[in-house]
Amino acid sequence: MSTMRAVQVVGYHQHLEMTEVAIPEPTGPFDVIVKIGGAGVCRTDLHILEGQWAEKTQVQLPYTIGHENAGWVAAVGSAVTHVVEGDKVIVHPLITCGLCRACRSGDDVHCENSQFPGIDSHGGYAEYLKTSARSVVTIDDALEPSDIAALADAGLTAYHAAAKAARRLTPRDRCVVIGAGGLGHIGIQVLKALSPAEIIVVDRNPDAVKLALAIGADHGVVADGSQVEQVLELTGGHGAEVLVDFVGEGGATAEGVQMLRRSGDYHVVGYGENIDVPTIDIVSAEINFIGNLVGSYNDLCELMVLAARGAVTLHTAKYALDDFQAAIDDLDAGRIRGRAILTP
Amino acid sequence: MSTMRAVQVVGYHQHLEMTEVAIPEPTGPFDVIVKIGGAGVCRTDLHILEGQWAEKTQVQLPYTIGHENAGWVAAVGSAVTHVVEGDKVIVHPLITCGLCRACRSGDDVHCENSQFPGIDSHGGYAEYLKTSARSVVTIDDALEPSDIAALADAGLTAYHAAAKAARRLTPRDRCVVIGAGGLGHIGIQVLKALSPAEIIVVDRNPDAVKLALAIGADHGVVADGSQVEQVLELTGGHGAEVLVDFVGEGGATAEGVQMLRRSGDYHVVGYGENIDVPTIDIVSAEINFIGNLVGSYNDLCELMVLAARGAVTLHTAKYALDDFQAAIDDLDAGRIRGRAILTP
Amino acid sequence: MSTMRAVQVVGYHQHLEMTEVAIPEPTGPFDVIVKIGGAGVCRTDLHILEGQWAEKTQVQLPYTIGHENAGWVAAVGSAVTHVVEGDKVIVHPLITCGLCRACRSGDDVHCENSQFPGIDSHGGYAEYLKTSARSVVTIDDALEPSDIAALADAGLTAYHAAAKAARRLTPRDRCVVIGAGGLGHIGIQVLKALSPAEIIVVDRNPDAVKLALAIGADHGVVADGSQVEQVLELTGGHGAEVLVDFVGEGGATAEGVQMLRRSGDYHVVGYGENIDVPTIDIVSAEINFIGNLVGSYNDLCELMVLAARGAVTLHTAKYALDDFQAAIDDLDAGRIRGRAILTP
Amino acid sequence: MSTMRAVQVVGYHQHLEMTEVAIPEPTGPFDVIVKIGGAGVCRTDLHILEGQWAEKTQVQLPYTIGHENAGWVAAVGSAVTHVVEGDKVIVHPLITCGLCRACRSGDDVHCENSQFPGIDSHGGYAEYLKTSARSVVTIDDALEPSDIAALADAGLTAYHAAAKAARRLTPRDRCVVIGAGGLGHIGIQVLKALSPAEIIVVDRNPDAVKLALAIGADHGVVADGSQVEQVLELTGGHGAEVLVDFVGEGGATAEGVQMLRRSGDYHVVGYGENIDVPTIDIVSAEINFIGNLVGSYNDLCELMVLAARGAVTLHTAKYALDDFQAAIDDLDAGRIRGRAILTP
Repeated sequence: MSTMRAVQVVGYHQHLEMTEVAIPEPTGPFDVIVKIGGAGVCRTDLHILEGQWAEKTQVQLPYTIGHENAGWVAAVGSAVTHVVEGDKVIVHPLITCGLCRACRSGDDVHCENSQFPGIDSHGGYAEYLKTSARSVVTIDDALEPSDIAALADAGLTAYHAAAKAARRLTPRDRCVVIGAGGLGHIGIQVLKALSPAEIIVVDRNPDAVKLALAIGADHGVVADGSQVEQVLELTGGHGAEVLVDFVGEGGATAEGVQMLRRSGDYHVVGYGENIDVPTIDIVSAEINFIGNLVGSYNDLCELMVLAARGAVTLHTAKYALDDFQAAIDDLDAGRIRGRAILTP
Repeated sequence: MSTMRAVQVVGYHQHLEMTEVAIPEPTGPFDVIVKIGGAGVCRTDLHILEGQWAEKTQVQLPYTIGHENAGWVAAVGSAVTHVVEGDKVIVHPLITCGLCRACRSGDDVHCENSQFPGIDSHGGYAEYLKTSARSVVTIDDALEPSDIAALADAGLTAYHAAAKAARRLTPRDRCVVIGAGGLGHIGIQVLKALSPAEIIVVDRNPDAVKLALAIGADHGVVADGSQVEQVLELTGGHGAEVLVDFVGEGGATAEGVQMLRRSGDYHVVGYGENIDVPTIDIVSAEINFIGNLVGSYNDLCELMVLAARGAVTLHTAKYALDDFQAAIDDLDAGRIRGRAILTP
Repeated sequence: MSTMRAVQVVGYHQHLEMTEVAIPEPTGPFDVIVKIGGAGVCRTDLHILEGQWAEKTQVQLPYTIGHENAGWVAAVGSAVTHVVEGDKVIVHPLITCGLCRACRSGDDVHCENSQFPGIDSHGGYAEYLKTSARSVVTIDDALEPSDIAALADAGLTAYHAAAKAARRLTPRDRCVVIGAGGLGHIGIQVLKALSPAEIIVVDRNPDAVKLALAIGADHGVVADGSQVEQVLELTGGHGAEVLVDFVGEGGATAEGVQMLRRSGDYHVVGYGENIDVPTIDIVSAEINFIGNLVGSYNDLCELMVLAARGAVTLHTAKYALDDFQAAIDDLDAGRIRGRAILTP
Repeated sequence: MSTMRAVQVVGYHQHLEMTEVAIPEPTGPFDVIVKIGGAGVCRTDLHILEGQWAEKTQVQLPYTIGHENAGWVAAVGSAVTHVVEGDKVIVHPLITCGLCRACRSGDDVHCENSQFPGIDSHGGYAEYLKTSARSVVTIDDALEPSDIAALADAGLTAYHAAAKAARRLTPRDRCVVIGAGGLGHIGIQVLKALSPAEIIVVDRNPDAVKLALAIGADHGVVADGSQVEQVLELTGGHGAEVLVDFVGEGGATAEGVQMLRRSGDYHVVGYGENIDVPTIDIVSAEINFIGNLVGSYNDLCELMVLAARGAVTLHTAKYALDDFQAAIDDLDAGRIRGRAILTP
């Protein structure tokens, strides 16, 4: 049995450790082994190390983290026919059952029996990852795993929310995006590709606003205290028909509600604080708050088409797998622009 | 110029007063004068007298209240052709412009230039009411204005919310209704007529629960402290796909959220307290809060079809217009079952 | 290896023959073996014997027919966890891959790699049937396999079309159903359960019209030559917003189009003749023709809920498996009311 | 009373004639008089002269033709408040009642009491046109009436169909456009603005295909006899999810059906021949035929936003009103690229 390098959680409030473990093999009929080309380093990984997920997942230590993965199919289970060894793939973050009502409806994110590699089982900070036939999306020849790995979770979440938001948007509508960071940055590109609405981006960081304008936003608003007024001015005093909030903390939601038009949709993506709104305001303006979790397998397929077309791009900073600690440290210190990627 | 009796607000924190005023006449081309057959007495009327609407509407006293009206067309403006004198009608509570984007989209409740007779101009506690061509819905011969007047606002609100809720309901879904009072009672009947879902009704009052079961609810839950557990038990531990909250106060929303399944819709109709929910919960369960205001003109047309068919009925207590104070007092004292109606 | 009785096609234009074959066993991880409780005898089975499907399916003779099956789980493959031996199930007519875009979207009927037991592989005129984990729907204790087997295909087709038709139906709308035979009969019950529209049923057979009225149709029209005029009269001269055509031959479509209102939906379910309509008529009335194939797995789950509730019932004539020829003969001679069912 | 020049139909199979008539004035409360800035010359105008519309409209001769109009508000009726003299407007081709069910639902094209200036009453080949408050859409300062007049009908029709088609299009889908002439040319630009789908344009004319590629089509197919094969090749052998047929004659529909994927939508816009398809094919592939008439008032508002943004442009050839005969002759002789516009 051959072995591989893997970066594991060995204890909470401790550093990750590089170790040698057995290369995973297909044991179930629908297993797929992916040779990792890139694994995204996510803020959630920091939270895992802080123990924030310990109780919820009950995952047994040590285990390999990493939930944003892409690479090449290395081996498949006996029943897998739609991918073969060597196929270039991105990995949907969930392993889903395919049989519950949610899975049968294309809404596999709400699978009643799902697994989340990198969170509750071995993930992709390694040379190989075990996932399932239902989780791999073949990608275009033009795309490189290490370039698009971060679209597997962060990008997918942004796609899902933006695509839901886009459904009701017409050329006359305005869509406010709060937060032009990692997710917001993808969300803006997706909104641009999927909807004809005017896009207004709000961020505290003038550079983020500048970037937003460069990738397709129609208006940029620096959140300097007058952001509500600015948005109202840009929307004829009415507010926007749709708002996508990639922040969800620091007062964003209270301000966001003021930027929303009657009958408007408030998409909650970022989180941290409470939505705390009088029911009378919800009723009298007839507004909606729409939750958004990560995207489905279909969402990921669609996002990959946009990526192949160059309609969605993401800045990445690549690190050798052995340099995992530097990547973690840089992320923690706010030194990463875009997304850090580990490449084995 | 002939005159009529009208019950008016003459001052806040004072009793209403009966007075003689001129019978309204069509002055604009789309005006319609309705001879009142029934005017619903609504809790909002009590709030008007308490001055709660004074600042918001800036209505000048004295003025005639009453915003739930039905009767017969008495006179029409020069451009009105779709109704004629003698037509039996129910009156949509709003006068809308017909030209703004909302009106042009069938969403006339969000008209940018609307008027609300009984709230911000003369209403229907009188012998005649001035409304507009866009507000009158011709009703079936089998219906009597005094029987269905309360469907004009209370019923319309319940219809609107229930019809929106019904859109996603399939035979496999459950819909929880919180509150089987005036609105909830209509909402249950509408859900029954429009959707194949299982209906679970929650109310503190055992008699209201009993009534709910009699008019079509599949399960009744008396809110005795164990209502969340009871609903979870009735839904396989998952909660309901859809919930319509006709209460919105006294802790209903916090409990309601616990009765909601992942991906569920929480329809806010009743109001009083705040929706106060962590964004992390909205995101991780991917739930939605849907605001519901009063229904559109189309909603009222549809409700009238259900009423004509006997699919929606409402208990009413009728009072002569001269006995308006008794109706107000009985409502205030909780002595009305269903809806009090003034009949001139 | 134990054996079972099975009724097989041994040659086209020949009688079916009873034979002894091996009881199927799970070989793939997702295989499910169902002990047959009832197998519906369908007009398609007659067409198979006439060789109409020979070229299309290239099925090798001899093989066991029967594509409307229900029974009990007898054995499962290694990866099956959601059903266990003894579970009472109805069998979706298709075995689908679960991995193509259609399957991942809940639209498994358009699976790119499906198999159709009873048509292109061994079916259910037998004691046991081999199907897949993705094809079995657990049914309510109150339902008996031999009572509901015919809902697996005929009923499912009717459900699918009626449920699609119901989506746009409001209380003000009318839905014309052409054909109150086997499928139409189910379709009417489904429309009644799922929509508040007025249902107008058209059939040549006065008894079928009578039955339609008994199970929920609001109006019955005997197609005696004046059916278009009768429908127009029942719809204020405008025609119906939606029409579901379970006939599709003998001039039904040309007449159906005349019964359709501007902006109306014409659902094609029955087939035989051509839709032959000037594009100018399609454009100037802005009408739609909507194709309908058999229903999805989700559709079958929903139909089973209606069946368990008694909202959809079907008349059946039961035959012992050994009497298969009598069932075939009775069907061919038009002596079956409802559906013939073989019970092993 | 002052007079104006107007070009009128004086008899069928005769030339149009320039004459002096009274300038129209507002007589009804919602009348709007528009000073014409541009009036599109449409193939329908040729058909009117050939008498093709005579029986259908029963319009009394002489009357002024021209149904694609834009200009400035010159006078308004007593009840008009949303536009004032001097406003730059495009004119929706229909005058609608605002009160029937279709109008109340935003679907005003199916108004039960509409009028069609230029077809059944005086149109816009003149200095002034009488229309209604419900028909004028204020346009952006950057747009000139003579540049965008042809969007009032031809452009609006293309927008309506393309916007309906776009609703189901995702990044993975393909949309075939048959016909890249006047309407198709607009349709392609609208599809590009509203959807992320891959656009495949089919036309007999290589220059039209070249133009289509220049304005956003992803693939161009010259219809040289192999067009079905070419489209199948571009779509992995499956056909396209959606097809918009701006031709509808000369065999386009039979070929179009072969280019359509299972579950596909065939949008009928152009007309001439019959849709003639076996019901078995509609059922077994579960395809839909979707009719498309002209767009609604809301559609026109949305199209004007795209036009103001430069996302939809149209080539025009301008003629002085006095040169109307030259414009008609050039159109008839196929000498117009884009659209001929009369400017008073």
